[in-house]
Amino acid sequence: MDHPFKDPTPPDFDPGAPVRSGVPEHGRVPKYYAVKARVEALVDDLAEGDLLPTERDLALRYAVSRETVRQALRELLLEGRLRRKGRGTVVSGPKLEQPLALVSYTEGVRRQDRRPGRSLIGLDRLPCPAALTADLGLRAGEPVWHMERVLLADDERVGLESTYVAVSRVPRLAADFEPDSSFYTYLGEVVGLPLGDADERIETVLATPREALLIGTPPALPMLLIHRLSRDTGGRPLERVRTLYRGDRFSFTAHLTPATHPRPTPGA
Amino acid sequence: MDHPFKDPTPPDFDPGAPVRSGVPEHGRVPKYYAVKARVEALVDDLAEGDLLPTERDLALRYAVSRETVRQALRELLLEGRLRRKGRGTVVSGPKLEQPLALVSYTEGVRRQDRRPGRSLIGLDRLPCPAALTADLGLRAGEPVWHMERVLLADDERVGLESTYVAVSRVPRLAADFEPDSSFYTYLGEVVGLPLGDADERIETVLATPREALLIGTPPALPMLLIHRLSRDTGGRPLERVRTLYRGDRFSFTAHLTPATHPRPTPGA
Repeated sequence: MDHPFKDPTPPDFDPGAPVRSGVPEHGRVPKYYAVKARVEALVDDLAEGDLLPTERDLALRYAVSRETVRQALRELLLEGRLRRKGRGTVVSGPKLEQPLALVSYTEGVRRQDRRPGRSLIGLDRLPCPAALTADLGLRAGEPVWHMERVLLADDERVGLESTYVAVSRVPRLAADFEPDSSFYTYLGEVVGLPLGDADERIETVLATPREALLIGTPPALPMLLIHRLSRDTGGRPLERVRTLYRGDRFSFTAHLTPATHPRPTPGA
Repeated sequence: MDHPFKDPTPPDFDPGAPVRSGVPEHGRVPKYYAVKARVEALVDDLAEGDLLPTERDLALRYAVSRETVRQALRELLLEGRLRRKGRGTVVSGPKLEQPLALVSYTEGVRRQDRRPGRSLIGLDRLPCPAALTADLGLRAGEPVWHMERVLLADDERVGLESTYVAVSRVPRLAADFEPDSSFYTYLGEVVGLPLGDADERIETVLATPREALLIGTPPALPMLLIHRLSRDTGGRPLERVRTLYRGDRFSFTAHLTPATHPRPTPGA
């Protein structure tokens, strides 16, 4: 997967016309999209962290309005090709590739030579909400922990993780656990509850205003949301996790083999 | 995964206030978000396909401007809770859950009692683009097929699939293959090339204008993009696929076990 190609249009149309991908057979290229294609070509020639010319310069260069440039840049920002830095716009690095696997966030980020971190938003003990009893194998009202943490990569806020776990499984969580560390390492090495298996569901959503504020994203940014239900090695439910990742900073990878078949969800 | 919960905010704040999820501890709920939460509560009480009150009615009901209602509805449309039908807005069904597994689109959709379909956009024979030679194990210029198909579920356009495969592996593709059928069934049963394994990468992107036109989505709709590189049972590269799914209509599921570990990408 080292050579992703951006565009499904075969390059035999006209190699000098990258804007082809914006055109239906009988259609026209929207003006902002033609500008976007040119800025993308510009970005391809720059290195990560390099400063992009200003909106005004780009508008002059391409003889279009600043609003047209702004629309082109907006898409490139949402897609993670560019990012804001101070008052300027710079070229982003590639998206982080996180494996869809039973490894922790910490381990996934380390594999890419980035420094993982987590910042605690809250750790609360509360009666198990009715919507979670089936997933956690609890009765309504049994005590659960709700732990919410902002995910960091090299001190950049990149996600928000919300974990529910029965207090009976990890009674000393509030006392023992260092919130900046890996919860799975804690579960496996301190509590003696290694992960057995998990079901995940991944979708794209818009961050709520609260989530956007906590992660520091623009509110319209598409996010990747992963729901996870983990079980211990004996098959008992362990935790219910909802993790939101910046869509402009993350992708997820999976290796599929004939053995990788989806298991029917256990009955509620 | 039958009981997704929408919101990481523990419900002990105030069960009567679903808009809490829009509020940072010290913040205010944006007005459109309060309206969105109320419309969501309304949608929860309706059935799939039920008609939502008009924008005007909702604006009157909540004593806000129509623009505020429109912003709330726009997010619910992007998230797939609502969809346009004729001139009205109706309640959507749940997102389709497609397994991240070595099954075809056809099989994944059938499992959910939806009728899969595919509509051919183009099948071209062209020299292998340089960007794909490593993935396909070919030299630049060797002939490849590029097949592009719109994915359908119950006649609704839900995605766009772009497949590259060496002509030498499936020389009779243009003559033999029924474009509305499963390519993997063709590979396995007609050509005698069953899939061995695959690497996938999933991310969220914005559709290009051409893609949005082909799938019939609004241009700003977040999409899920899956890159797949498949190999035959002997480990030789078979196809390179780029599939775009409507983010408001699809989610992907995976079952993770300790054996589900990501394999290093084979060297380019």
